[in-house]
Parts: sequence; structure tokens; C-alpha cells
Amino acid sequence: MSSDLKSLFQPEAVAIVGASQDELKSGGMFVSSLLKDGYKGTIYPVNRKESEIMSLKSYPSVLDVPGEIDLAIIAVPAQGVPPVMTECARKGVKFAVVHSVGFSELGTEGRELERQMVEAARSGGVRIVGPNCMGIFSPKGCINTIVPHARVPMEPGGVAFIGQSGWASENTTRLGSERGLRFSGIISIGNQSDLTVEDFLEYFGNDPETKVFAAYIEGIKQPRRFLNLAEEISPKKPIIVWKGGSSELGAKAAASHTGSLAGNYALFEAISRQKGIISAQSLEELLDLAVAFNCPYLPTGREVGLLIEAGGGAVATCDACARAGLNISPLPQRIQQQLREFLEGKIPPSPARGNPVDLVWVSFADALSVYSTCLEIMAPVVDSCLTICYAFLEDESFLSRLENIRNQNKKPIIVVPGNSIDQRQGMSLAVRRGIPAYAMPENAVRALAAMTQRAEYLKSLPTSPKS
Amino acid sequence: MSSDLKSLFQPEAVAIVGASQDELKSGGMFVSSLLKDGYKGTIYPVNRKESEIMSLKSYPSVLDVPGEIDLAIIAVPAQGVPPVMTECARKGVKFAVVHSVGFSELGTEGRELERQMVEAARSGGVRIVGPNCMGIFSPKGCINTIVPHARVPMEPGGVAFIGQSGWASENTTRLGSERGLRFSGIISIGNQSDLTVEDFLEYFGNDPETKVFAAYIEGIKQPRRFLNLAEEISPKKPIIVWKGGSSELGAKAAASHTGSLAGNYALFEAISRQKGIISAQSLEELLDLAVAFNCPYLPTGREVGLLIEAGGGAVATCDACARAGLNISPLPQRIQQQLREFLEGKIPPSPARGNPVDLVWVSFADALSVYSTCLEIMAPVVDSCLTICYAFLEDESFLSRLENIRNQNKKPIIVVPGNSIDQRQGMSLAVRRGIPAYAMPENAVRALAAMTQRAEYLKSLPTSPKS
Repeated sequence: MSSDLKSLFQPEAVAIVGASQDELKSGGMFVSSLLKDGYKGTIYPVNRKESEIMSLKSYPSVLDVPGEIDLAIIAVPAQGVPPVMTECARKGVKFAVVHSVGFSELGTEGRELERQMVEAARSGGVRIVGPNCMGIFSPKGCINTIVPHARVPMEPGGVAFIGQSGWASENTTRLGSERGLRFSGIISIGNQSDLTVEDFLEYFGNDPETKVFAAYIEGIKQPRRFLNLAEEISPKKPIIVWKGGSSELGAKAAASHTGSLAGNYALFEAISRQKGIISAQSLEELLDLAVAFNCPYLPTGREVGLLIEAGGGAVATCDACARAGLNISPLPQRIQQQLREFLEGKIPPSPARGNPVDLVWVSFADALSVYSTCLEIMAPVVDSCLTICYAFLEDESFLSRLENIRNQNKKPIIVVPGNSIDQRQGMSLAVRRGIPAYAMPENAVRALAAMTQRAEYLKSLPTSPKS
Repeated sequence: MSSDLKSLFQPEAVAIVGASQDELKSGGMFVSSLLKDGYKGTIYPVNRKESEIMSLKSYPSVLDVPGEIDLAIIAVPAQGVPPVMTECARKGVKFAVVHSVGFSELGTEGRELERQMVEAARSGGVRIVGPNCMGIFSPKGCINTIVPHARVPMEPGGVAFIGQSGWASENTTRLGSERGLRFSGIISIGNQSDLTVEDFLEYFGNDPETKVFAAYIEGIKQPRRFLNLAEEISPKKPIIVWKGGSSELGAKAAASHTGSLAGNYALFEAISRQKGIISAQSLEELLDLAVAFNCPYLPTGREVGLLIEAGGGAVATCDACARAGLNISPLPQRIQQQLREFLEGKIPPSPARGNPVDLVWVSFADALSVYSTCLEIMAPVVDSCLTICYAFLEDESFLSRLENIRNQNKKPIIVVPGNSIDQRQGMSLAVRRGIPAYAMPENAVRALAAMTQRAEYLKSLPTSPKS
């Protein structure tokens, strides 16, 4: 079933039920976002009273729409949803994204309404996302109901995100895009009345364009299926899960948010780890990890090569590496010698050539070539490189050189700009090229530790008969 | 001695030794920053070869300068520093900021050079900041050698920061300013050859304009004095310390960075806590805490009132509060009743009026008044309020209303915008008014927990005879 999700992400015709002229209303925002984001299919506004919305012909019901409908986005009050769904079923609509709230998250009464809606959908084979959700961001389909009011790059990429929270989905779309992540799809799944996180895990797990799967989950409907899928997909691509409701307090909040039973968190964590799932503890960590796994290589072991131009940053990195079980061991004498020879006269004297390699201060004119050459010298003898330097990441030739060092050595090069406040755009460019970039060393080290753990997990797997 | 530091932060005349026409060189940047930042005193460029620098008369040595010099900023190669210092001593210069590197951070040889420099200074009573440091950011004195190339608001404020790292000092200046912090002074102290973190702790501890003292420290020269000062100052104002070199690896990096002995971290932490020092584990946490303590009130206890418009954010906040030992308990029935009556018809139905109070979705037109009124209803019966909502923090009347609620109830109101990416400027405005604002709920909760701990620490103190 879930292999059919293509029409959800790239629908040829979309109906907006509850469409509105008013851009401050959801039904108005959804129409206008399809228009401004360059959606290439047919848009059918549906509104009982209007005959035209934003210069598009509007229909009283989906049954009046002349063509086929792949996706109906429903933004009418909860009580009106089951009858609309009955019409969608009769019309043969493939997918419905139900934005409306007031279902199982409200308790008994809402649960009954949700049951009626699902029953109506099933009668015609309509698959539902939601209710109580923000819907879809699909750059490939030029469709964005998650932050319909905002300009977000419509460039497809390799990260999929599933969020059981509109807030998490919105922030992943906006903050993730700003950080340089590009998405194969983002779904806000709300109450999971029909399509669940498992369905999307299966879909994106098998999607060759998706390289990283990330999710914010409050409750899992079919734990066994979820874990079986994770076990199957983890060896192929990283699955990052931030599980909300780890505390009793949080679990209670989850119940009234998406009607979810959060389950036993400790048990979930333990089993997840066995299945290769990577755990995040916050949205920020989830984004940090997505940035990390967007890099095409994993560390080859626990030895980090640290090139710095910020002594305090080096101390912070060393402390963080020690906490994370990563090593910053002295480089071999011949490498230290090579570095000393290369750096002679280029930078102020410093005893620190052993790792961290401390550049103290490099002239602006020499900076990029000094950073790159040092990384070229160090990379072959360490398992990953991390550099805290005053790099100009907007310099495309510098990024190309970092990319080359990464590819030749098949290990990650991670950058923490000394002055991250000036480098937000540059960091985004780096991330888009698979060079993880972070504002703070602790975030970089946390992400590097997760990459290292994944490398170790992959090594621990029984080799397949073919390899 | 340290009570005299006023001429360091507000010097009437500054000499730049090693001044340059070249703005890419430190000696050039320092002159140009004094000019662009509107420094009101006299600037004396000192350069053996030039007679004019940036349209200012230049002198071959400080001895040739006609007037008195409060502060000499020294940016000549290490070997040249002791002779310059001898001249400064003869001239009667009050303070020298030694930017130059190549001293005790290099080991034995550098240590000897540093000793010579200090000896030369002592002969004339010159007090030294550095060497191996970025110097000063003093908005009140319109002086900025820390990020001389950058535009940073020159508005004085209540936060003092002392950094034994140029990188930490730079980032505190830039990122802290962007987040809305305003500073009474920032000092990058480098090797602490003369003036130490203790001197600045004493100075800012007694400075009535400084409300929050924060520091990044690698090594403490006089631990007993530091702890005695902390004990004396902590009851009056928060002291936030991020101690680098907590690990063996980090301690080694600190030694080659500022020649510091990092000491026993666990012992330092334990004693610090007794003295009321607030510990941060990263630069980000230090900034988060400075933002928190910039609020004029502390929580009155551990009960948090949570007002949200982002269900996933509520779950995250509940989980974080549970981890931090903060409670989100049901509000009294009469308060829930008041909220239900007020919210009736304004927002979609939701069972969650008990705490978290879930607004689900508020129309843009009503939003600010709904948020404020709910906080007004909740604030009297909780110990602090935290709200995750799609607020427009740039709205001054909204911020004024939040400020009123805070002042009337004498407890903090903390804001996490649902869409922080659009609210950076607004968050900064909020912080400047003493309304802590954070992009992510976990950061807000961590800061709130530190505020709560400080409130408990203050309560635990023996009451003074006067009170």
C-alpha cells in the first residue's frame, strides 16, 4: 500500500476543501501556496459558497470537480469532515490530508468522529494523513501545506522527515532548509488515523532518493511493524528518531496533543538501539544529526584530527570528545613534521602541531589554502577531521577542496566556523555539499559521535551473502 | 587595585602600539575600530616608521606621545613587547592590553619572555591584560578590540563577560549582542600574566551597573581568592562559569592555549556549587543563562505554568521539565474555569486547559491579547510562566504587557516563539526587556531550572543582620 505514496507527494490534481479567499485562513493559505510555489498540476478549490477563489474556478463539492483528484486537502470544521470524506470516497480521491482539529486528541467524542471519518474513507479507498496535522512539504511536487505562508527552497534533496507535531514539522522545514538540508519529503502526520509513521518509514526506506530518514514521534501504532521495518532499513540508511513523551508529564501532554499513547520510553530506546535506530533528544539534535548523515561518508574509527584557529574552541572540542568517547591522539611524528614544515613562517610559533593542530592566527590572504593543506596532510592518518577556523565558507573553491579531501580519504570533514554569526549562509552551502557545519563545537562532536556509532553499527552487521 | 579598572574600560587616551594603515592587520583594525565606534578620548597611533595613520598623527614610541595615556594596546611581535612595556612603564601608562602571542602558551621560552614583560610593567605600575588576548569590548567607553571589524551595538548593559579565549569572547560579543544581551564589559584575558579573572570578578562584583557576571575560564591563578570573592558576590549577583579543560584532553589543550593548569574539574565544580557559582557546560549554555539572569525576577518555586500553541513543543517542554525536576501541575479548578470561560469561542475545542494550557490555534487578529490574558490568569498561581506561541515579539505593546505581568507577579515570563526563525529580532527585543526568549524549549527549560536553583540558593543563605 505504502509504495503508492507517490501521488501524495507528487499529485497531478489537488482539491482544497474549505478553500478561501482569505489568506489568513488555512484554506486560503493552501491555495495561495500552491500558486506561489509553482505547483504544476491542477488546483481545484472547493467551497460551498464561492464560484471563484484566487482566480481559480471553485466547486461546491469534490463531486462537482470535473477531473480526477489525487489529493484532497481538507480544512473544514471537524463535524464537516466525515461527510466530505464520504464524497471523497465516492469521487475516488486517492489521498486526503485532514488539517482540521477536534478528533481523537479531544478524547471519547472526537475519537468517534475520527472513526466515522476513517470508515467513510475506507469505503472508497481514500488514504488519510492526519487529522490534526499540517500536511505535506514536497519540493519535488511543489507542494507545501506545512509552512504555506513562507518561502522555502523548493529544491528536492535526500532527507525525509515525519513529524507527529506541526511545530516540529514546521521548524524542520524552516530551520532545516536554512541549515542547508534539502528534503525528499516532510509530513506532519497528526493523529495517524490511517497513514502512520510506519507507512512513511516503509515508503522512504525504499525510496532511492531518500538518504536520511528522521522522525518526531509521540506514539507508534504498530510497534512490531515499526521495529521490523527499522531493522530492514537501518543497514541501508540512517533512521533518526526523536521520541516525545519520554516522561510521564510528556506522555500526558502527547495524549492530549495527538491522542497518542507514548508507551514505555526506556523500553523503546533499548529496542530502537538494537535495530540501529539513532536517538535524538530534541529537535535541535535531530537537525544536527540530519546534517551529519547528509555527509556521504562515516568516520573510519574514533580518532579525530582537530585543526583549529580558536584555542578556546579546541578546549571545548577536546572536552566534548572526551565525554563522547572520541580520541584526539597525537599525530604520527612524520605528519607533525610535515605540518611544521608547511606552516613554518606562515603562522605565529605554537607548540601545538601534534593534535589539536593550532594555527593560532592565519592571515586572511593565506587562510583557505592553509586550512586545506593542513587537512590534506592530516586526513589520511585520522578517522575524521574537525576544524574550527575562520573560514569563508561562501568560497566555492574552498568548499570544493574540502569535498575533494573528504572524497579522496572517504571520511567526513566537519567545519565549525570561528565566527558562525557571519557564516550562516556559508554553513548552509557547506551542508548542501555534504560537509557538516555547526555553530558550536559541542554540537559538531555530538553529531560526529553519532556518525561513529553508526559506522560501528554497520560493521557489527553480519555481512550479506553477496558482499 | 581592581577598583581602579575604570580607566581600562573608559580610558581618556589610548595608544595603539604597532598601529598600521592596513586594516587587515590587528594594529590597523584597532585604530579604525576606535574611529568607527565613536571613541571620545584621544587616540595615539604608535609606529616606528609612520608619521600619520588613518589621518591621525603617529608617534615613534609611547615616550613621544605628548599627553597622558590610560591604555596602551600592544600589537607588536612578542620579542618587541618587553622593550615597549619598559617605555610604557616610564611613560606612566595605566593599562596595557597585550594582543601579541608567543608567551607562556609556548612553554619555557615564552614563559621567560612573559616574566620579562611583567617585570618591566611592574617597574612603572602598568597593569596588563593578556598577553595572547583579544582585549576589551566596552560599550560605555566606545572601545572594541574584540571584534574590531564588526558592527556591534555600543549600548551599555548589565552583563559582564570575562573570557580566557578570544573565540569565546568574540562569540559572546557577537552572539550575545544578537540575542539581546547588553554588556557592562567584555574582556578577553589570555594568559592572565597580571590581571586575572579574580581581578575582574572583584571589579564587576562591586560594579552597581553589572547585574550578571559570566566567565569562560581555563585556569584560575588564585583559587582561594576566586572562591572567597565568589562567596561574597554570589548572594548579590549571579556568577556563571563555563570551565574549559574538564577532561584530560581538554586540560592539555588549555595548557597549550593559554598556558593554564586546568586543575581538578570535579573538585572545582563541587566547591563552585557551594559558593553559589552557576555552572555552564558550553558557550551556548552560558549565553542561555545570561539571557535568563538578565530577567529581574527569579521563579518563586518549581511550578511552571505552560501556555502553548504547539503541541509537540509542549511535549518537549514537559519532558525537559521532568528531567530538570520542574513541575507542570494542574492549575486550580477556578483558574481552569476562568481560562475556559475566556477561551470559549476564541479557539478550537481542546481538553487541555489544566496545564499545559493548549491554545491549539489562535487567529492572528486575537493572538497577542489571547496570549497575554491567559498569562495574566495563570501567573498568580504558578512560580514561572513559559509560553510557546506564535507571538509577534516585535510588537512593543505585547512586550510591555508581558513585562507588566512579570512585574505585577514578580516572576519570570519566558517565551519560546513557535516560529523562532522569523522571530530573531523580536526575541532580541524581548531579552533586552528582561523577558528571556529561546529558540528551543529545551534551552528555555535548562535556563529556567538554573534560575530556580539560584532562587533556592538565595533562600538557603543565612539572612543578613539587616534584613
